[in-house]
Amino acid sequence: MPEYVHGGDVYSFAVRFGGAPVDLSANINPFGIPARVKQAMQDAIDACTHYPDPFCRAARQAIGAAEGVAPDRIYCGSGAADVLDRLAVVLRPKTALLLAPTFAEYERTLAGADLRFHTLCAEENFAVTERILDDITPELDAVYLCNPNNPTGCIIDPALLRQIAARCAGVGARLIVDECFLGFVQGGETLAPYLNVFPSLVLLRAYTKMYAVPGVRFGWCMTADTALIEGLYRAGQPWNVSVIAQACAVACAGEREYAIQTARRIAEERTYVTEQLAARGLWVCPGKANFLLFRAQDADLQEKLAQRGILIRDCANYRGLARGYYRTAVKTRKESDALLTALDEIQKEER
Amino acid sequence: MPEYVHGGDVYSFAVRFGGAPVDLSANINPFGIPARVKQAMQDAIDACTHYPDPFCRAARQAIGAAEGVAPDRIYCGSGAADVLDRLAVVLRPKTALLLAPTFAEYERTLAGADLRFHTLCAEENFAVTERILDDITPELDAVYLCNPNNPTGCIIDPALLRQIAARCAGVGARLIVDECFLGFVQGGETLAPYLNVFPSLVLLRAYTKMYAVPGVRFGWCMTADTALIEGLYRAGQPWNVSVIAQACAVACAGEREYAIQTARRIAEERTYVTEQLAARGLWVCPGKANFLLFRAQDADLQEKLAQRGILIRDCANYRGLARGYYRTAVKTRKESDALLTALDEIQKEER
Repeated sequence: MPEYVHGGDVYSFAVRFGGAPVDLSANINPFGIPARVKQAMQDAIDACTHYPDPFCRAARQAIGAAEGVAPDRIYCGSGAADVLDRLAVVLRPKTALLLAPTFAEYERTLAGADLRFHTLCAEENFAVTERILDDITPELDAVYLCNPNNPTGCIIDPALLRQIAARCAGVGARLIVDECFLGFVQGGETLAPYLNVFPSLVLLRAYTKMYAVPGVRFGWCMTADTALIEGLYRAGQPWNVSVIAQACAVACAGEREYAIQTARRIAEERTYVTEQLAARGLWVCPGKANFLLFRAQDADLQEKLAQRGILIRDCANYRGLARGYYRTAVKTRKESDALLTALDEIQKEER
Repeated sequence: MPEYVHGGDVYSFAVRFGGAPVDLSANINPFGIPARVKQAMQDAIDACTHYPDPFCRAARQAIGAAEGVAPDRIYCGSGAADVLDRLAVVLRPKTALLLAPTFAEYERTLAGADLRFHTLCAEENFAVTERILDDITPELDAVYLCNPNNPTGCIIDPALLRQIAARCAGVGARLIVDECFLGFVQGGETLAPYLNVFPSLVLLRAYTKMYAVPGVRFGWCMTADTALIEGLYRAGQPWNVSVIAQACAVACAGEREYAIQTARRIAEERTYVTEQLAARGLWVCPGKANFLLFRAQDADLQEKLAQRGILIRDCANYRGLARGYYRTAVKTRKESDALLTALDEIQKEER
């Protein structure tokens, strides 16, 4: 089996250590699945005797209403990762620009393309700055951004993001902006109102992190380019989104308040974790998401924490990062303190 | 949106007519989801707060035990259609042989390949005969068979199938045999015991038709070629099989007796539907599956039945078939009689 490079592998943990870890390696809402979403999933089990709607009609209707986007500008997939796979099949960019570091799945789906990297640097707190505009050149077919970026948590200034979109349009490059974690950012600004302004813009979204259902597999993209959407339907099997995932999406679209409250509580907790990590001498990236990138002297910290029942994400294998970088999800105080206590124990033992 | 060419689109029916049809267009077990399978799906909802196991460890273990195949020879996907998509990505056959008629998804996944067709003929009741051996030539990279074939329901004689496998091995062609409906065939013989004999053999399977959960999306393939399995993992997103689908598969693997009883009851009902259709002057293909191909003079029969609340599959768009061919699922007596009564009404009105 290939090596698994992402967070959230509680299954390998169970095989190694038995039981369930405190999972801070996947950035999932710690407040769990909203009751109405859970109920919708339960209610959908009987409907699984039918194939799923290949056009996800009810889900696109509900998302469209919640997001203020016409349903025919929405394409639903089996997780944002499925949408990324299909985008690569349809767009087949010869040359693409990616951030470094960023979410590894973009690069996986673009195997064979000439990939260029806009390297973010620690000196700039891994922020995307105007420097990127110089890297958006006419040879590019596609630019992939992640806002907030994974694993840094940094958001891109909305005015700069519009400049980037205009520059991409100017050089004829498709701009794909992954907004999967944007709901966790208090006051986070989506590019959705600009879909009409920039027809080559594609926004990637997921409800499954915010509503704590990554296991259900649902994500979508939005674009004014309906020919692209037509292509996405043809780019793989017609029944990619399960009956339960579609019902789940409809229910999630009605849970706006849950997202707002979550973003507020996560922001408070992020401040606490940032301060506490910094107090322990660790450098913490000033991100705005439900996860934090930090640096430690200890290159084996992930393993040491795993042995204490805590999973974080070792970021050494991210392009543009090095050993000693780690990402932790921001969850509840209980989970934060479990991490902090374990860090203290490790420090103590090594003195 | 692209045209939808398959059966089971109860959603378009609902939009057009309102309500739910008697669905004989998708070949799903009419006896519903076994209680333990439903319970397993319900129990898995809470576990959806985690990403799915990308390696489907528990599901492969359970399937391997049920099928007598080592778990590392099994690859699980989000429906057999996902496995077909990935097989096409990994194998990239330049030249492939398909049956005509057969399931349309093979051809969809092989866009760009030089496709050759072994045409089955009405004079031979659409059976696969020794004629096919002559079409298996050294230029071929892959041969796709469907056993029982969809939409004919015909099974391939086991001795001939082994001859075909040997011939494919001889000419260096990968043989993919879709056994997704084989569980509905009383005494149906899988090629699974021959996986070691023919390392280039790939068997495609699904539990979701037999256990009435096509909406959940789960299918798998089995092969002794572990390098191919490694490739399938890399051919798309790592989280393709949902948490609920994996739990569902584990439960289905424990429901052997349900499948045996279903095959027995379906065989009885198939005899009844065959006789009744024949008594109405329709030609019925002597299939052995949970569906029947038949021919009528009336090219608009699907539409007329839809207006009476009954969905069957118009097979005019199958390569190798013509207008007037239809496929109906074999379900319960109640559903059979609904179809037969509607046919009688249509005949009466047109006299």
